[in-house]
Amino acid sequence: MTLGFGVVGTGAIGREHINRITNKLAGGKIVAVTDVNQESAKQTVDQFGLDAVIYPNDKVLIADENVDVVLVTSWGPAHEATVVAAVEAGKYVFCEKPLATTAEGCMRIVEAEMKHGKKLVQVGFMRRYDSGYVQLKQAIEEGFIGEPLIIHAAHRNPTVDPRYTTDMAVVDTLIHEIDVLHWLVNDDYKTVQVVFPKKTKNALEHLRDPQLFIIETKGGIVINVEVFVNCKYGYDIQCEVVGEEGIVKLPEPASISFRKEATLGTKILTDWKYRFMDAYDVEIQDFMDAIVKKGEPQGPDSWDGYIAAVTADACVKAQQTGEKEAITLQERPAFYRETTVCETV
Amino acid sequence: MTLGFGVVGTGAIGREHINRITNKLAGGKIVAVTDVNQESAKQTVDQFGLDAVIYPNDKVLIADENVDVVLVTSWGPAHEATVVAAVEAGKYVFCEKPLATTAEGCMRIVEAEMKHGKKLVQVGFMRRYDSGYVQLKQAIEEGFIGEPLIIHAAHRNPTVDPRYTTDMAVVDTLIHEIDVLHWLVNDDYKTVQVVFPKKTKNALEHLRDPQLFIIETKGGIVINVEVFVNCKYGYDIQCEVVGEEGIVKLPEPASISFRKEATLGTKILTDWKYRFMDAYDVEIQDFMDAIVKKGEPQGPDSWDGYIAAVTADACVKAQQTGEKEAITLQERPAFYRETTVCETV
Amino acid sequence: MTLGFGVVGTGAIGREHINRITNKLAGGKIVAVTDVNQESAKQTVDQFGLDAVIYPNDKVLIADENVDVVLVTSWGPAHEATVVAAVEAGKYVFCEKPLATTAEGCMRIVEAEMKHGKKLVQVGFMRRYDSGYVQLKQAIEEGFIGEPLIIHAAHRNPTVDPRYTTDMAVVDTLIHEIDVLHWLVNDDYKTVQVVFPKKTKNALEHLRDPQLFIIETKGGIVINVEVFVNCKYGYDIQCEVVGEEGIVKLPEPASISFRKEATLGTKILTDWKYRFMDAYDVEIQDFMDAIVKKGEPQGPDSWDGYIAAVTADACVKAQQTGEKEAITLQERPAFYRETTVCETV
Amino acid sequence: MTLGFGVVGTGAIGREHINRITNKLAGGKIVAVTDVNQESAKQTVDQFGLDAVIYPNDKVLIADENVDVVLVTSWGPAHEATVVAAVEAGKYVFCEKPLATTAEGCMRIVEAEMKHGKKLVQVGFMRRYDSGYVQLKQAIEEGFIGEPLIIHAAHRNPTVDPRYTTDMAVVDTLIHEIDVLHWLVNDDYKTVQVVFPKKTKNALEHLRDPQLFIIETKGGIVINVEVFVNCKYGYDIQCEVVGEEGIVKLPEPASISFRKEATLGTKILTDWKYRFMDAYDVEIQDFMDAIVKKGEPQGPDSWDGYIAAVTADACVKAQQTGEKEAITLQERPAFYRETTVCETV
Ligand SMILES: [Mg+2]
Ligand SMILES: [Mg+2]
Ligand SMILES: [Mg+2]
Ligand SMILES: [Mg+2]
Repeated sequence: MTLGFGVVGTGAIGREHINRITNKLAGGKIVAVTDVNQESAKQTVDQFGLDAVIYPNDKVLIADENVDVVLVTSWGPAHEATVVAAVEAGKYVFCEKPLATTAEGCMRIVEAEMKHGKKLVQVGFMRRYDSGYVQLKQAIEEGFIGEPLIIHAAHRNPTVDPRYTTDMAVVDTLIHEIDVLHWLVNDDYKTVQVVFPKKTKNALEHLRDPQLFIIETKGGIVINVEVFVNCKYGYDIQCEVVGEEGIVKLPEPASISFRKEATLGTKILTDWKYRFMDAYDVEIQDFMDAIVKKGEPQGPDSWDGYIAAVTADACVKAQQTGEKEAITLQERPAFYRETTVCETV
Repeated sequence: MTLGFGVVGTGAIGREHINRITNKLAGGKIVAVTDVNQESAKQTVDQFGLDAVIYPNDKVLIADENVDVVLVTSWGPAHEATVVAAVEAGKYVFCEKPLATTAEGCMRIVEAEMKHGKKLVQVGFMRRYDSGYVQLKQAIEEGFIGEPLIIHAAHRNPTVDPRYTTDMAVVDTLIHEIDVLHWLVNDDYKTVQVVFPKKTKNALEHLRDPQLFIIETKGGIVINVEVFVNCKYGYDIQCEVVGEEGIVKLPEPASISFRKEATLGTKILTDWKYRFMDAYDVEIQDFMDAIVKKGEPQGPDSWDGYIAAVTADACVKAQQTGEKEAITLQERPAFYRETTVCETV
Repeated sequence: MTLGFGVVGTGAIGREHINRITNKLAGGKIVAVTDVNQESAKQTVDQFGLDAVIYPNDKVLIADENVDVVLVTSWGPAHEATVVAAVEAGKYVFCEKPLATTAEGCMRIVEAEMKHGKKLVQVGFMRRYDSGYVQLKQAIEEGFIGEPLIIHAAHRNPTVDPRYTTDMAVVDTLIHEIDVLHWLVNDDYKTVQVVFPKKTKNALEHLRDPQLFIIETKGGIVINVEVFVNCKYGYDIQCEVVGEEGIVKLPEPASISFRKEATLGTKILTDWKYRFMDAYDVEIQDFMDAIVKKGEPQGPDSWDGYIAAVTADACVKAQQTGEKEAITLQERPAFYRETTVCETV
Repeated sequence: MTLGFGVVGTGAIGREHINRITNKLAGGKIVAVTDVNQESAKQTVDQFGLDAVIYPNDKVLIADENVDVVLVTSWGPAHEATVVAAVEAGKYVFCEKPLATTAEGCMRIVEAEMKHGKKLVQVGFMRRYDSGYVQLKQAIEEGFIGEPLIIHAAHRNPTVDPRYTTDMAVVDTLIHEIDVLHWLVNDDYKTVQVVFPKKTKNALEHLRDPQLFIIETKGGIVINVEVFVNCKYGYDIQCEVVGEEGIVKLPEPASISFRKEATLGTKILTDWKYRFMDAYDVEIQDFMDAIVKKGEPQGPDSWDGYIAAVTADACVKAQQTGEKEAITLQERPAFYRETTVCETV
C-alpha cells in the first residue's frame, strides 16, 4: 500500500519533505500539491518530476480521493484551518510546527479530532525520532537512572537572522525542548521562570541573548534550558538528565576526531539542518508505517501541539514579567494518553 | 522509475535487503526471488507480502524482463556463476561479499563486465557508506592531514562461532578492512606479514586469536590491523590514519553517555548487525540512485572484488608462512579507475 | 629559610597538612602543636616524629618566637579567636574554612589585618590551586571565550553523613563554589535564588537534596549550581563557563579509559579526598613560597573569607524564603584588591 | 633525616633536579656540586642560593661524607665511571638515562652493585611514576583485563633538532617505552623488528621518520610502537594494552575542553617538558622516601638500565637489517627481582 500525500505549502521545508518521501523513504507518493504561490507549486512538481495534481487551494486538495495524507508545510498562521478541514474530511495530517499559532486554535483541532473519533494528526516535532533522545528515553523508562530529578539542557545557534526577536527564542527555538522534554520524562509542565544573563555583544540591540528558562514539572522535575542563539561557535544541542541513581546525556553527533595543530578535537556542526537530518527521515517513515500498520500515527499528536502552545505562551509571559508563571493545561482527555518509547519507536 | 529486483538467495542477509528495499528505501521493488531451498523463497514472499515471482533457479530469474537488478545473496561459492550470467544478460548486480571465492573467479567477472562494456556490478562492502569512513576519506582527500603514512586499525568481535577457523580471520573479518582501507587512501597493497601474539584463553583450541596484520601499500603506507574475534567486551571497529600534518580517527558510534556506579561511560555494541546498519541502507539507496541517475553503480566494483580476493589469498598465505608475502595484482584496467569520495557519496 | 609552623588543631585535616609540610613539600617545618585534646596533640607529634613543642593552647603557641605561621585546623567556631590573636601578634595564618562562622567575625579579622598593615592570612580554599580551575581562569583572562555570561556548575557527592542538614549544602558544600567562582570571573555576587527539585529517595527525611542555586553577579553573569549530595554514582565536580565567543569546561580527572563488558568508560572518584589532593599540595607550597618571596600570601585572603560568609548567609536565607535574596557586601577596601591568575599561580 | 645530594653535572636536567629537591620536595638538600665546566657549577650554586661545596670532579665529591646520594646528570658517556665510583664508595645514586652507553658498561655497574651487596642505584626513567602508567599497571596486576596480549603505543614529537638521527629514535625516544613497557607487563623482551613507513616530508633528508617497532616478549605479548618525531601536531604519548578480558588505555593529560569556532576540543601539549612534570617530582620524592624508609631505592634499577641498553642495541640493529632481531639478555640475578606496582608506588 502506498500512501498518497497532498502537500499544502511548497516552501523550503515542504520541498525537503517531498524529496524525502519521493527519493529516500518507502511507502509514500506525492499525488497533489498546492501553494498560495501557484508558481512555487508548479516549480516543485517540475523539480522533483512529480506525477501530482496542482490544486488552487487546500480545500480542493483535501477533497481529492487520492490524497490519504495532508502534509501541512504552509505559513504557520494558515496551519489551523487546513488541519481542521483535513481532519473533518477524515484525512491523515502531518503538520509542521506550530500546529496552530494559539492554544485555542490547537484546542479546536483537538476537538475536531476527538469528534472524528480517531487520531489523524502528527505534529512535526522530529527530535523524538533522534537516536540520542530515543536512547535517553529508553534509559529513563528502563529505570537506569531511577527517577529523573533535574534536566540541564542547552539550545545554541551560531547566529540568527536580524529579524529574530526575544520571543522567538521561545516560539522558534525553545519550542523543540518544550516538546521533547515532557515526552522524555512523561510529565507535564507546571511553572516557568526566565532569567536573563548579561547580554552577548554579538546579539543585536533588540534581542535578549542568552536566556535561561527554569521550568518545573508537576512531578517536581526542574528543567534548566539555556537558549543562546548567537553563541558563535556552532549549532549545539545539549541534554543531560540527572536521576536518583545516575545521569544520562545526549551524545555529541558522531564525527571523526583529529589531532592537529596542538588540538585534539571534533567538528561541531554549524548548520542546524544537519543535526536532525536522520530524525526527519525516521519521523516521516514512522508516520507512514504507523498509519499502515496501526491505523493511526504514533508520534507527537494534537495534544502535544496544544501543550507546546500553552507552554510557549507562559514562557513568553515569563520573559516579560520576570516572574514565575503558571503553565495551565486543561485536563488531558483519555483520547490522548501518553505513549511510551516502546510504542513509539 | 522503480528498479525491479530479483533476489538470488533468501537467507538472513537476503531477507534483510528485501526488507530494506521494500520497507525503508525509495525506488526499488522485489519482483522475483529464488533460492536453492524453494520453501525459503516462498516463506520470504509471504513474510514481506511481496508481489514477486518465485523462480526455480537463478537462470530463469535473470531472464525475467522485469528484473533490472540481480541481488546476489546466496552461498558464497554460488556467487560467481550467478554474477557472470547476470552480467552476460546485461542486468545490474548487487553481490554480497565475496564476489567470487577465488581471484580467478573474480577475474572472470571482470572480463565478462568489460566485455559487456559498462559497469554493472557492485559488491556489498558497506563500510564505504559508513558516515565515519566517509568523513575520514573526505578529510584525507582535502589534505587535512597531509599524506597518509600509517593506519592503525582494529576489528574486534566479542566471540565467534566454534566453526570459525584461523583463515576466517582473513576471509570473513579482515576482508572488510581489506576493502575499505585501500579505498580510504586510494592506494594498492604490496605486501603483508602476520604476527601472532599470545593466544587468548577465550579462543578455542584450533583458532589463533588475536592476530596482527602488517600491510604495506605501493605508496609506502604501513597498515596495522589487529583482528581479535574473542575480545569479549564488544564489537569494536577502530581506524586511525596518521598523516604528515595530523591524525584523523573514526568516531565511536553515537551513544548516550552515563554517570553511574563510579563510571563515566558509554555502551559499546556487542552485535555487529547494529554497527553498520545505517551504512547498509545508504549503500543500497546509493546503488539504486546511481543506476537511475548515472546509468552505472558507483560503489565497490568487480575490480574491488578482485583486489579483495587477491589480498585475502596473500593474507592467508602469510598466516601460514610467517613471512612477508607479496600481494600481486594485475594491472588495473582503465575501465576500473579509482573513484573518489566526492563522486561516490 | 624554613618557615616554622604552629598547628592549632590536630584532627584529620590538621594531620594531613602536617604530613604534607613534613614529608612532601619544601620550606616548612612543624615546630609547635596544640589541641583542646592534648592527647591528640601528643599522638600527632609521635605519629609524624615531629620535633615540635606541645602547647596547652593557641595563645602560648602563637607567642612562641619559632612560630612564623599559625596553621588553624581547629573546630570552625574556634577559628576567629585564633586568627585574630595570630594577626595581632604579626604571625602569618593559614586558616581552613570557615575563616569565621559569621560575616561579622570575618570582618573583625579583616579589621585586625588592616590594622596590622600587611596581609597575613590565607583561607584554605584549595580549588584555586586545582590545575583545571587555573586553566579555566587563564583562558578567561586571555579572552579565549570573550566575556563570560553563564556558568553551569555541579557539586555532587555519592552520599553524606546522616547529620548533614539542608543548610550544610551551603556552608559545607556550595561554599567551595562560592569561593572559586567569583575568583574565576573576577566579579562580585549580587543575588541568589534556590529551587528545590523533586527530592531523591536516597536522601534522609530531613534533607532537601538536590538543590539548585541561581546566583547573579554584579556584572550580570548567571551562575547555576546543582548541589546533589546523594547522587550515588560518585564525587563529581563540574564547571562550564559560557562566554561570548565560546565555552570552556573543567576536565574530568585524568584516569585510564577502559573497554570492558560492553562499556567504554573511565572511573569516577567516589572519595572527595582524591579530587583535590594535588591542589592541597600546591596550595600550601604556594602559601610558603609567597611568604618567603613576596612577604605575604597570594591566595584567598580574609576578604574572600568575608565574601564566603556573607554569600553563604544569603544562600541559607534563600533556601528558607524561596525568594531571590540580595548578597550585600561592604565595599572592598583597596587593601584587598582582586589578584589575577598570573599573580597567583 | 635530610639526605645530602652531591650533583655531578649542572646542565639543564641537573638544575631542574636541584630546583626540585631544593624548592618543591621534602627530605633532600644539595650539599655539593661539580661539573666539568666549573663556571656552570658556580652559577648553579648562585642561582639557587645553595649552601653547597663546589668540587673539581666527581671523585672528591663522592668522597665528601655529607654526600649521601650522588645525582648523576652529566654527559651520557661519563655516567658509568661516576656511578661505579659512587657505588664502590657505598653512596646512593640517582642516574639520569642512560645508566651507561653500552650493555657492558651497565653490566659493570650491576656487578659493582652486587659486590656491594645492596641496591644503591636508581635510573631516571620517570614514566613509571606517571599517574597514567601507574593506573595501567595497577589495572593489569589486579587482573582487570586478564592476561595482556598486545600493546599499541605511540611516541610522537612535533619536531626534532636537525642533529637528530635515525638511531636516536631508539636511544633518545623509544628508550622510554623500552623501560616502561616491560615494567608494565612484568615480562622480558625477546625480538624486535622495524618497519619504515613512507617518510614524512617534514623530516630532514638523513632521518627515517616515522618508524614502527614490533617487539615480542618472552611471554608472547606483541608490542607495536610508532615513533614519529616530526608529527607536527604535538607531543603525544599513547599506550593501550589489549588483554583477554578488556582494554586499558593511558588518559590524555587533563586539560580544559572548549567549544569554539566549530570545534569541540582540548589542547595537546607541544613541549615534552610538561608531559611528565609531575612524574619527575614523584620520582625523586619516592627515591628519597625509599632510601629513608626502606634503605634502598625502589624504582628502576641497574638491571633495568642493562635491559634498556641491550634492547636499544637490538632495536638499532633491527633498523639496519630490516630483519627480526633477537634481544638477548643475561639471566636476571635474584638480586634484581621484578618489583610490583604495590611496592613501587
Ligand atoms: Mg519538525
Ligand atoms: Mg556487505
Ligand atoms: Mg581547604
Ligand atoms: Mg628521566
